[in-house]
Amino acid sequence: MKNIVILGASGYTGAELVRLLAGHPSMSISALSADRKAGMEYGNVFPHLRHLRLPTLCKIDEIDFDGVDLVFCALPHATSQRVIKKLPGHVKIVDLSADFRLRDVGEYTKWYGGEHDAVELQKSAVYGLTEFYRDEIKNARLVAGTGCNAATGLLPILPLLEANLIDPDEIIIDLLTGVSGAGRAAKEGMLHAEVSEGTHAYAIASHRHLGEFDQEFSKAAGRDVKVSFTPHLLPQNRGILATIYVRGEAEAIHKALVSRYKDEPFVYMLPFGEAPATRHVRGSNYCHIGVVADRKQGRAIVFSALDNLTKGSSGQALQNANIMLGLDERMGLEMAPLFP
Amino acid sequence: MKNIVILGASGYTGAELVRLLAGHPSMSISALSADRKAGMEYGNVFPHLRHLRLPTLCKIDEIDFDGVDLVFCALPHATSQRVIKKLPGHVKIVDLSADFRLRDVGEYTKWYGGEHDAVELQKSAVYGLTEFYRDEIKNARLVAGTGCNAATGLLPILPLLEANLIDPDEIIIDLLTGVSGAGRAAKEGMLHAEVSEGTHAYAIASHRHLGEFDQEFSKAAGRDVKVSFTPHLLPQNRGILATIYVRGEAEAIHKALVSRYKDEPFVYMLPFGEAPATRHVRGSNYCHIGVVADRKQGRAIVFSALDNLTKGSSGQALQNANIMLGLDERMGLEMAPLFP
Amino acid sequence: MKNIVILGASGYTGAELVRLLAGHPSMSISALSADRKAGMEYGNVFPHLRHLRLPTLCKIDEIDFDGVDLVFCALPHATSQRVIKKLPGHVKIVDLSADFRLRDVGEYTKWYGGEHDAVELQKSAVYGLTEFYRDEIKNARLVAGTGCNAATGLLPILPLLEANLIDPDEIIIDLLTGVSGAGRAAKEGMLHAEVSEGTHAYAIASHRHLGEFDQEFSKAAGRDVKVSFTPHLLPQNRGILATIYVRGEAEAIHKALVSRYKDEPFVYMLPFGEAPATRHVRGSNYCHIGVVADRKQGRAIVFSALDNLTKGSSGQALQNANIMLGLDERMGLEMAPLFP
Amino acid sequence: MKNIVILGASGYTGAELVRLLAGHPSMSISALSADRKAGMEYGNVFPHLRHLRLPTLCKIDEIDFDGVDLVFCALPHATSQRVIKKLPGHVKIVDLSADFRLRDVGEYTKWYGGEHDAVELQKSAVYGLTEFYRDEIKNARLVAGTGCNAATGLLPILPLLEANLIDPDEIIIDLLTGVSGAGRAAKEGMLHAEVSEGTHAYAIASHRHLGEFDQEFSKAAGRDVKVSFTPHLLPQNRGILATIYVRGEAEAIHKALVSRYKDEPFVYMLPFGEAPATRHVRGSNYCHIGVVADRKQGRAIVFSALDNLTKGSSGQALQNANIMLGLDERMGLEMAPLFP
Repeated sequence: MKNIVILGASGYTGAELVRLLAGHPSMSISALSADRKAGMEYGNVFPHLRHLRLPTLCKIDEIDFDGVDLVFCALPHATSQRVIKKLPGHVKIVDLSADFRLRDVGEYTKWYGGEHDAVELQKSAVYGLTEFYRDEIKNARLVAGTGCNAATGLLPILPLLEANLIDPDEIIIDLLTGVSGAGRAAKEGMLHAEVSEGTHAYAIASHRHLGEFDQEFSKAAGRDVKVSFTPHLLPQNRGILATIYVRGEAEAIHKALVSRYKDEPFVYMLPFGEAPATRHVRGSNYCHIGVVADRKQGRAIVFSALDNLTKGSSGQALQNANIMLGLDERMGLEMAPLFP
Repeated sequence: MKNIVILGASGYTGAELVRLLAGHPSMSISALSADRKAGMEYGNVFPHLRHLRLPTLCKIDEIDFDGVDLVFCALPHATSQRVIKKLPGHVKIVDLSADFRLRDVGEYTKWYGGEHDAVELQKSAVYGLTEFYRDEIKNARLVAGTGCNAATGLLPILPLLEANLIDPDEIIIDLLTGVSGAGRAAKEGMLHAEVSEGTHAYAIASHRHLGEFDQEFSKAAGRDVKVSFTPHLLPQNRGILATIYVRGEAEAIHKALVSRYKDEPFVYMLPFGEAPATRHVRGSNYCHIGVVADRKQGRAIVFSALDNLTKGSSGQALQNANIMLGLDERMGLEMAPLFP
Repeated sequence: MKNIVILGASGYTGAELVRLLAGHPSMSISALSADRKAGMEYGNVFPHLRHLRLPTLCKIDEIDFDGVDLVFCALPHATSQRVIKKLPGHVKIVDLSADFRLRDVGEYTKWYGGEHDAVELQKSAVYGLTEFYRDEIKNARLVAGTGCNAATGLLPILPLLEANLIDPDEIIIDLLTGVSGAGRAAKEGMLHAEVSEGTHAYAIASHRHLGEFDQEFSKAAGRDVKVSFTPHLLPQNRGILATIYVRGEAEAIHKALVSRYKDEPFVYMLPFGEAPATRHVRGSNYCHIGVVADRKQGRAIVFSALDNLTKGSSGQALQNANIMLGLDERMGLEMAPLFP
Repeated sequence: MKNIVILGASGYTGAELVRLLAGHPSMSISALSADRKAGMEYGNVFPHLRHLRLPTLCKIDEIDFDGVDLVFCALPHATSQRVIKKLPGHVKIVDLSADFRLRDVGEYTKWYGGEHDAVELQKSAVYGLTEFYRDEIKNARLVAGTGCNAATGLLPILPLLEANLIDPDEIIIDLLTGVSGAGRAAKEGMLHAEVSEGTHAYAIASHRHLGEFDQEFSKAAGRDVKVSFTPHLLPQNRGILATIYVRGEAEAIHKALVSRYKDEPFVYMLPFGEAPATRHVRGSNYCHIGVVADRKQGRAIVFSALDNLTKGSSGQALQNANIMLGLDERMGLEMAPLFP
């Protein structure tokens, strides 16, 4: 049994980790931190988990890391780097914040502002897109979970750039996302009355996950790639759908993706011509990908859907943790989606 | 490994059974029937389950019941009785329809109309409220799953009538339910545009689950009990909340329920004065119960919340099937609720 | 043309007033205040109203009240009384807060805490339930808008107590309300992710609108009346549905209500045996009331539905303002509900 | 007072027409038809309109068209053409179906299949995009309402093609739409349980409104234009948001649209760099348009939002009817949006 600590357990990604770990046969939670809610029972913060026996929430500095195998760090951006650099050397770390996603210090500053507080660690961190960094993750001490929007766009497109099947200069990622990605902080714009029965685009052409797209797409293509990216907020809690307009032959694109993902446990290719729905991956670690030919020759539309809290963050984090600890990477992650 | 068949697998309760069985270590699905969709792949009917390897949907008479241990029957009312009476004697049956819930033939006709087609079976069927019929379920061939609304009202109130803690003539069950209980059939009244952003009461003072309340409450009280019962339709998919107005001492009521349910794996008592929320049991087999004192002395409000598709039907069915097959009744049912 | 000021215009009831006044032929908005948002264009605070020409938001003390006929005060409880007592004597006031609803100073302190800051005004304020205080409203300087839940319960029940048709000791008000009643302040519990796809009861047996129920029901019955009252939060934005359990003859109750409301422009009685839905009054000033016989003799269930932001607050406020200013009380209020 | 008939009044666009006409000072409804619901009171079909005095639903052939000024035809596609060709010559007609939108007979057959049954009428029909066909509408006998998706895409893009500000070969219309556009017919895919809490694309690269885009964009550009078009279904009732990727200078695009629409009563341009939300036009006849520069030079993203039942169909129809009858085109249409 591996001993696990979750830092920043009072947010949605923290709760999702607890939900997943509750069904994991080889991991046990030894501490849960949440600075402002220290002293509270976890079941009072997240009543859907009140049937579980869990440690009382504590402050980070109250945690004894002796014997701890792995820490999930679900703290806010910027806080995360300051906490992680003080963690003892024997613990492995999966970070769910944005702090260690960008390998280039300048890019970090460009997208997130300010100086990075743990530059050395940043350099050694492995980008947590499991399907593309599995070998590095196996030996990593620190894995940086991807952005949830980034994961949704990277999974269908990276193989196409690697195989030179699409024009790198003509990629438009139109993305729809549920509200849980914005976290549990009380914000006017995330109230039910503001969000339900409506939709709108936000962070147009300026969303921070562009930093991840630039980094990973450019690496895959072997040259600079800049995509257009427009996220929209949907009146639903979970789920991201990316609708991606590309130049390339639709059938070849589909064939390449089928081949690339045929052995991946959590990426599922739909038959050619079909498109996925977020409701069909809700609460699961699956990503569904579909390819449809556009009416204009030489163009295709690639769709990908995943649950932002699972495959987009906490499920991906657990998948990586399994690999880092030498466990079967599917452990605790094979529950079917919840529908309706 | 037990061989399982699901009849009527194209509805929501059927899909919920498949979801649950996908995570069950000792059951394997050997056939799925759906007469009108026979020949279709299950993943095309319920794309959220397309990652599973499942038998193609077939007609009931194509199924070979040799070697089958248990059949879940998720067929519509009235159809169910006609199918079940033809099933071979060696298979055990958990029926999710209303056909075998009422022990009295006259009551059946009163609430559902028409003659019962399998009167002998009806007499031998065991009512599937696990927490009250566990011993009979253990040895039953046919268990009749409770109505989802009935389960929500019976769990908190039956122990109070048995212990004589409340006035049997003064029970008002006000109930709120999500739309998935109405099934997947296309009805104007269940369209998103009709249901969302609104609420209303339906089947007022005449809902068929009153037959189950009458039967079980009268048995528990040792006298005739008739409750008032008003269900309301909510703009949400899963979840039932019963708000029950009773005469009795709130603290004594809470204490009695805590004592009654302390060893039950799926009934969770909230601290005195707290009330449950449907979102905190979504997708799980848990029932949360709370007790609050009214401002009027000698009156209390008892709340209970469960997921109609899980503890209210398919989860309850699997719990009973586990018992009938000699397995741990919690098997395949301990996943945590999905929130948000 | 009457000159109108709205104080506290940055909340939902303020925006609802602006929406209604935009279609009012005899009222014109001369100032909109919102202390923390002073200086902002109204269309940036509420973009659905950006097509209107409206005054820039200002601070209260920047407003010139000369020539102002009436002030709608949509400020928070407690703030309202301090502001209103300083308003010049020539302006009429409709207050949407709770500050002037309770005639008894002790009751005010009991339900809202603290001393009342404008006791003299409190005594002279008229309770704004139009259908019961129309004559007093005509001559009032200060009208106190009712609680939205209170209005929903009072309209169907007051006539029954006045006519002695129901037992005053046996009234249970079970109520379902949308989230907009909680206002626009950012609270964790009102986030979309927290509210959607779930329901729960809150402020059980302790909701502040009980003060209004006690006051008005006791007055109508000529004796002390205490009701049981359980509000529930629904995953919808607008609409309140009250399901009220009473002792009395259902048909007599229906007949009395039909008679009582036959000339009221905004209270609509459904045929006997039918129940209303919140979606059918959304965005309108109508209240729909229905009566159904319980299965237990001598008991009935009375339903009432209204839109909390319209008939429950801002629409009611405008109806009262019309009366206070000698206008047709229906002015600006006859738009049909919005469905779906 | 103009006498109005609505054919096919039992669907959502029919109900929306009734809602709008209820507030129209110069139109009066003399008949409402709905073949399968003939004989029913309108308030039983749409209870949100039960407070109105309306004609009982009838069959079309029961209607006396003497003295009728204008007919709104809200019948299904294909039925509409057969009914309209039999209407007496003195009535003007606004058709809300797709039957008369495409001027080319071959295009009609291509997108809708079958032969057109009223080819002569088809040729004389005027396309109902008010802002571009106002003069023709003034003198038309038959106006064909646009598709709701088509209107959302045409309004922001037509002026840009006319002014040669964007590349006609590089237009991608990514569109999000609520469910009410699918009508009130009971379909499995439109159930609340299927639609809520999820999103997906449909009719990818093959939606019938492409016929309208082709026709109008080609006319505006003076050459063949074929756009890419991907509609998505959202878990909300009303509202369409088009996110349109174009090649051109964003500021010039914004400036051109501001200039083009500065005198239009129902098209509202947002400040440069802002994007609209469907919730801010709900229930109104307004269309909000925004322009944002892409991060890639020479590219822009143009957004437009409207309510599919109002500006997208019934509101547009009324606006055209006002023009055809010589009334102020804003009559009955200036109600503010409903939010929240």
